[in-house]
Amino acid sequence: MQPPTLRDVANAAGVHTATASRALNPESRNLVNPDTARRVLRAAQALGYRPNPIARGLKTAKSGTVGLVIPDLTNPLFPPIVRGIEDVLAPAGYSTLIVNTDNQPDREKSQIASLRSRQAEGLIIATALLDHPLLRELHDQRVPMVLVNRRTEDLGVGSVAADDAMGVGLAVKHLADLGHRRLLHLAGPQTTSTGVDRLLAFREAVRRYDLDADPARIVVCDSWTEEAGAVALRSALDAGLDITAVVAGNDLIALGCYDVFAERNIACPTDISVVGFNGMPFLDKLRPPLTTVAVPHHALGQEAARMLLDAITSPDRPPRSVLLPPSLTVRGSTTAPHP
Amino acid sequence: MQPPTLRDVANAAGVHTATASRALNPESRNLVNPDTARRVLRAAQALGYRPNPIARGLKTAKSGTVGLVIPDLTNPLFPPIVRGIEDVLAPAGYSTLIVNTDNQPDREKSQIASLRSRQAEGLIIATALLDHPLLRELHDQRVPMVLVNRRTEDLGVGSVAADDAMGVGLAVKHLADLGHRRLLHLAGPQTTSTGVDRLLAFREAVRRYDLDADPARIVVCDSWTEEAGAVALRSALDAGLDITAVVAGNDLIALGCYDVFAERNIACPTDISVVGFNGMPFLDKLRPPLTTVAVPHHALGQEAARMLLDAITSPDRPPRSVLLPPSLTVRGSTTAPHP
Repeated sequence: MQPPTLRDVANAAGVHTATASRALNPESRNLVNPDTARRVLRAAQALGYRPNPIARGLKTAKSGTVGLVIPDLTNPLFPPIVRGIEDVLAPAGYSTLIVNTDNQPDREKSQIASLRSRQAEGLIIATALLDHPLLRELHDQRVPMVLVNRRTEDLGVGSVAADDAMGVGLAVKHLADLGHRRLLHLAGPQTTSTGVDRLLAFREAVRRYDLDADPARIVVCDSWTEEAGAVALRSALDAGLDITAVVAGNDLIALGCYDVFAERNIACPTDISVVGFNGMPFLDKLRPPLTTVAVPHHALGQEAARMLLDAITSPDRPPRSVLLPPSLTVRGSTTAPHP
Repeated sequence: MQPPTLRDVANAAGVHTATASRALNPESRNLVNPDTARRVLRAAQALGYRPNPIARGLKTAKSGTVGLVIPDLTNPLFPPIVRGIEDVLAPAGYSTLIVNTDNQPDREKSQIASLRSRQAEGLIIATALLDHPLLRELHDQRVPMVLVNRRTEDLGVGSVAADDAMGVGLAVKHLADLGHRRLLHLAGPQTTSTGVDRLLAFREAVRRYDLDADPARIVVCDSWTEEAGAVALRSALDAGLDITAVVAGNDLIALGCYDVFAERNIACPTDISVVGFNGMPFLDKLRPPLTTVAVPHHALGQEAARMLLDAITSPDRPPRSVLLPPSLTVRGSTTAPHP
């Protein structure tokens, strides 16, 4: 039996094939009267019509796929972002090709080349560095692109991220309200917008709440990992810094602090309080449960996907940067300092 | 400037275009002398040649993509499996389209239809139920397919999973060695192979180590979630069952036990020990750190991807079922029972 054709669908709906084609393609559906579009879609469904996106891809340069470039899916930050993206793209008729770069520029370059050779219609990028020549190159080639969880400098590209300044402000205010004066910020890599923005926000909040502003109270981690967090905390403790609370650049850096506490018999929170950033799953079951700045990652993914669909359909709309508000989740890792 | 063509690559390598084409396509590379293939690949790289997989897809029905069907990427079980799959498929020239089904049959059906309309060359499926009519239908249509972390009944489809019987055996032996006699198994849903296999293995191990074999010592959870684990443990405790240790069907079910312990002021491990299954990330930082059966998920993904590549290139090779050995990670959630 032959599969139903576009002509069969058009006949069943009582419209021209050109109209049926426009109605069936999410890209052009808005060109068709909504009632007609619904009639065509219902006819297509009744007949079991299945368009061939590959053939459509060749004709219209629309592959119906979008590329998602992330450092590493096993970092618990990314699965909810990916789910949010897919939850918006799938109903819009798009599939998502995911590539992991492990933050290696060569790997990123070849992975993005592979996505482009599959004619991905746009890219959502979670690996952006502040200075990122490859992204500049893609932007110059007018590749539709959105950054998620990151922004980049001097590049007119849309981005969706958490409001880092607000998040760090919530963390520092919480600690200041508890009576802490001698904080340590374990900052993320300063090659990333999140690392820079959170550090600046920490400095600003320390000033606002009139806390000890010794520059030694900021240590920059080499990466966003447990290991780098542990190394940074050890170096601050070994330098003899007096610390009653840590504002970690992210939850993994905070987990690295837990490792150092165990090594050195430091009680958390009674000796040192810790606040994380992100709100990874299962933090409520840690020992102690981690106070953290919770970021709405699923919503970040949804917003990024919506912005990319916009960028694909309206390439001349000016890029915008969307910030979503985080919230503070207070748990057992923070308490008042020793009197 | 025109991009380099296949003919340019063939000329640079000093071969016919047909040979260059075969060498550049991972599907047919083995038909070419290895030295020649290397020469062609080097010429392609030097010229910056980029094949168009979509055009190739139309001609040879090879899209260069594979579909991956999972319940929910935000379940921490799946990211390492997905990474393992991608780490094998990407170097072989394949991209991965991921879809989430949330275990809803309708959603699964439409997601798989979408993958097929994009001419995915094969499917890796992590959602298989023991009785799964849709998979039977796909199998009858000779869609290359591999099951990961699951098997299905009476269907000649290759599968890659952990050796569940071995894993449960390790957990029960550990508890028996500590002196436990009154265990509770919180089993996963009996519609899944992992749920059934772990339950059977529990029954067998209880017999082997001569422990209390009361059938009330097995409670089946509605789903593989914390909530379902908590409900099941509450029902066993409310029935007055005397329990010194729990063998949880997976880590999330074990985390549900932690919630019930907190509600009812039960000390873990002194009142009740718990063993999880899977070895999710960060279990070492729980309160108490969770003893668990660690499954090599990244390797499961790699094996599944290799098996699918085999199934695509050698469709007549008989299907096989691969089991990878888990290992026991002993942590603070297990100790000897009260004397």
